[in-house]
Amino acid sequence: MSGESALRAEVRRRLDAQTKPPGSLGFLEELVACMAEARGVVEVKVDPVAVVIFAADHGVCVRGVSAYPQEVTRQMVLNFARRGAAASVLARELGVGLTVVDCGVVGGRFVEVPERRGFRFEEARAGEGTTDFLVGPAMSEEQFDGLWDAGRRVALEAIVAGAETLVAGEMGIGNTTSATALACGLGFGDAESLVGRGTGVGEDGVLRKRGVVKESLRRHAPVQPLAGVALMRYWLSCVGGFEMVAMAGFFQAALEARKVVVVDGFIASAVAAAVSIGYPQVSGGFIFAHVSGERGHRVLLERMGVRALLDLGMRLGEATGALVAIPLLRQAAALYCGMATFKTAGVSDSSGLF
Amino acid sequence: MSGESALRAEVRRRLDAQTKPPGSLGFLEELVACMAEARGVVEVKVDPVAVVIFAADHGVCVRGVSAYPQEVTRQMVLNFARRGAAASVLARELGVGLTVVDCGVVGGRFVEVPERRGFRFEEARAGEGTTDFLVGPAMSEEQFDGLWDAGRRVALEAIVAGAETLVAGEMGIGNTTSATALACGLGFGDAESLVGRGTGVGEDGVLRKRGVVKESLRRHAPVQPLAGVALMRYWLSCVGGFEMVAMAGFFQAALEARKVVVVDGFIASAVAAAVSIGYPQVSGGFIFAHVSGERGHRVLLERMGVRALLDLGMRLGEATGALVAIPLLRQAAALYCGMATFKTAGVSDSSGLF
Repeated sequence: MSGESALRAEVRRRLDAQTKPPGSLGFLEELVACMAEARGVVEVKVDPVAVVIFAADHGVCVRGVSAYPQEVTRQMVLNFARRGAAASVLARELGVGLTVVDCGVVGGRFVEVPERRGFRFEEARAGEGTTDFLVGPAMSEEQFDGLWDAGRRVALEAIVAGAETLVAGEMGIGNTTSATALACGLGFGDAESLVGRGTGVGEDGVLRKRGVVKESLRRHAPVQPLAGVALMRYWLSCVGGFEMVAMAGFFQAALEARKVVVVDGFIASAVAAAVSIGYPQVSGGFIFAHVSGERGHRVLLERMGVRALLDLGMRLGEATGALVAIPLLRQAAALYCGMATFKTAGVSDSSGLF
Repeated sequence: MSGESALRAEVRRRLDAQTKPPGSLGFLEELVACMAEARGVVEVKVDPVAVVIFAADHGVCVRGVSAYPQEVTRQMVLNFARRGAAASVLARELGVGLTVVDCGVVGGRFVEVPERRGFRFEEARAGEGTTDFLVGPAMSEEQFDGLWDAGRRVALEAIVAGAETLVAGEMGIGNTTSATALACGLGFGDAESLVGRGTGVGEDGVLRKRGVVKESLRRHAPVQPLAGVALMRYWLSCVGGFEMVAMAGFFQAALEARKVVVVDGFIASAVAAAVSIGYPQVSGGFIFAHVSGERGHRVLLERMGVRALLDLGMRLGEATGALVAIPLLRQAAALYCGMATFKTAGVSDSSGLF
């Protein structure tokens, strides 16, 4: 850790030599320090950016926890491919590609995914959606392991192809309920503080979700105390989604490889929370893109002790919040790399000397 | 106004037809509506973006209100030209040009400004900085008129050259004190709530600034009630800066031409507040980029009843906050123009139909 502190001090020294009052770029300066720490080097680089959306369906949907029918997960995967979704538009605007991973979308294998420039489709199906976690664990150990490894593989392939920054989002009707149960199980809050409206259920839907989350926590209360990787695995398997487990593996591999990881909204943050418990030594590499309009997100981030870059009331998922934050990373890095110093520019610093 | 409401309703209808839960892009959807209203048409377009930094010096500097010596204003103009300043780096990163207007920087006319690609220098000098406003009005009526017209001209030239979005920032050692007095004079707060640390004075500096602002308000208390354009002109002339008056003219011309205007930090917001009093009928076209780390900014925006896009604790001025916000405008516009609808994408909406 003393190495990390020396790194941070060097970043601070460089920032303070630049032609601006010390600290006047605010959180952008902190962002530079975070990226340097994630990378383990004083140089910061954002591009190439790899954006991956993990998609899967959720057995808990039968409990009426979503405003949308389950087939929307499948329809949206095709919408990503046809480049009509919000994430597609943002990825195009940023000049980055989009990869969608089918981790288990209901309706069988995709055979008709159109090939488009800037879009890649991958298959890592663990089944036709998770088991309803009020009936049993959402998935088996074997499913967990397969998804975790698939997520790791997707991250490693992106890194080998050159990615400096990795972004993950998700698509899965019903997954705010699953993510809420996960965050509660891991100890980041309770059903009262974390359950929100998701994609837009009404007050009765919120009550229903709250009931489902509470029931799932009772049902899966561990018989012995768990910690670290075991705790992470337990709750991800019991109440998580296929897409969340793959995302967790993706995060872990990216952090381990010392890359910057940008976390999207509530669901991705719950997964990041799980990875932080399993792998605390690398969790400093997470950058939280935004605090979403989903009620529990602000609570979750506070409990995790982290600060998000944006607060725009977005609540769409599918990596959109993370994509909107990418220009801030680019700008922070550009300022850090491109500004003149007081000395080179011949500008007086606050002491009147330079 | 009924026309504006119909416009907003049409924007909402288009946004709600897109493949996302209604309102799930949060404040980005409001941003689209604001841009449409500013433009007076349902189509939204962000680029080309014109970025102008108005620079001038302040007589009130003799009161010891800044952490930096006055010559820094001049040095920073040259730093903009040499593309080493934060604003230069951000403009380059965004692919937009930067214009700097000398409205009266101490040290005489610039003769040595380097010509660089993406940088333009303009001269609109009203003198060697303002008069110390504890001694008299900061400027004469003639100076005000010349600067207002110069600002208008800069905006009109940019619009004729194609600009769809206009951004203004400032550079002027001592100008947070001037902007604070302006905001107080206009009725947006008092010295206690609005005076902050500027570029970084200590607690004694804050007390000194507070004393200067209070004294300026006593000295220039109007002998008769003023409103509208007269109120705007009065306080801008008495306690404003040359760069602020030019920026006010720039804002007014851009809004009148139905362009989107992006307001930077505390000083630009105080100028926007003045223009909102003078020209309330067009002030809906302002987009406030960020709430800065300068203490009074949050108070000022609240009193104006507006919300800013970013909250990153930046406090550098020189249009940097506005430049950091430009990608959000671009992304909001791209989503609005580029997303599929439920119908075209074959995605079920929340009713299960489309």
